[in-house]
Amino acid sequence: MTFMLHPQLAADTVLVNEEEDLLLLMMNDRQYPWFIVVPKQDGITEWHELSEEIQIRLHLYCVRLGKAIARSFGSQKINTAALGNMVSQLHVHVIGRQQDDPAWPKPVWGHSQPIPMEEKELNTRASTLKQYFSCN
Amino acid sequence: MTFMLHPQLAADTVLVNEEEDLLLLMMNDRQYPWFIVVPKQDGITEWHELSEEIQIRLHLYCVRLGKAIARSFGSQKINTAALGNMVSQLHVHVIGRQQDDPAWPKPVWGHSQPIPMEEKELNTRASTLKQYFSCN
Repeated sequence: MTFMLHPQLAADTVLVNEEEDLLLLMMNDRQYPWFIVVPKQDGITEWHELSEEIQIRLHLYCVRLGKAIARSFGSQKINTAALGNMVSQLHVHVIGRQQDDPAWPKPVWGHSQPIPMEEKELNTRASTLKQYFSCN
Repeated sequence: MTFMLHPQLAADTVLVNEEEDLLLLMMNDRQYPWFIVVPKQDGITEWHELSEEIQIRLHLYCVRLGKAIARSFGSQKINTAALGNMVSQLHVHVIGRQQDDPAWPKPVWGHSQPIPMEEKELNTRASTLKQYFSCN
C-alpha cells in the first residue's frame, strides 16, 4: 500500500497511533483535545470514494474515538467533521468541545491560531486519550 | 417511537424525505446545496449514543447523500459534519462546496446569513437531489 500523509497534516499534528489501515493524529493545539483520523489510502478526498467496508471501519473508529475524548477530557460536546477544503486528503476531525473553550459555540476551524504544546504536555494528552480509547 | 425535530432545525429547513428511522432536510439557503440528516431518536446528541446498527445506517445514508450532492450540483468538495454546539439534537450536515461559493475555503457555519429561496426554487433543488439520490 503506497500512502503519504499530506505535509500540512504532518506539520500540524503528532502521531498517536498507527494501525494497518489508518493513522490517529493529534493536533498540536493546547486549546482543544483535537484528533484527526486519516485512512491510509492515496488519492482519496471523499467518504464515498472509499469501499463500504472501509467507510464503516473508519466511521466506527471515529465514533469510538469521540466517546474516548468525551471520557478522557470531560468534553461536553464532540464535533466530528470531514471538510477538506484546505487539505483535500480525506481526514476526519474529532474534537472535544467545552462551553468555555475559545471558539465555543462556533466551529474551531479558522477561529484562532493554534497554541503549541511542549513535548511533555503532548505526551500526557496522548496517553490520557489512549488509556480510555483502549478500554471501550 | 416518540420523536420531535428541534424547532430551530424545523425553522431553518424544509423536509425532503422521511424514512422510518431518519429525516432528510434541506437548509433554505440559496448559497449552498446544504442537507441535514436527523435520526428519529429523542434525546440523542452524540454519534456514540446510537446503537452500532443505527450508526452504520445513518453513516452510509450520509455518504450516499454526499455522492448524490456531488453529482446533482457539480460540487467540488463535500463537507460532512456533526457539530451540535448550537442545536444539540444529533444532526449531520452534508454540504456541497464550490471554490467560488461565499465561504470557500472556510466552513459555512456562521459565515453569512442564509439567503432563502422561493418555493419553486426549493422544489427544483430538492427534486434535482432526489433524482440522483434514488439512482445510486
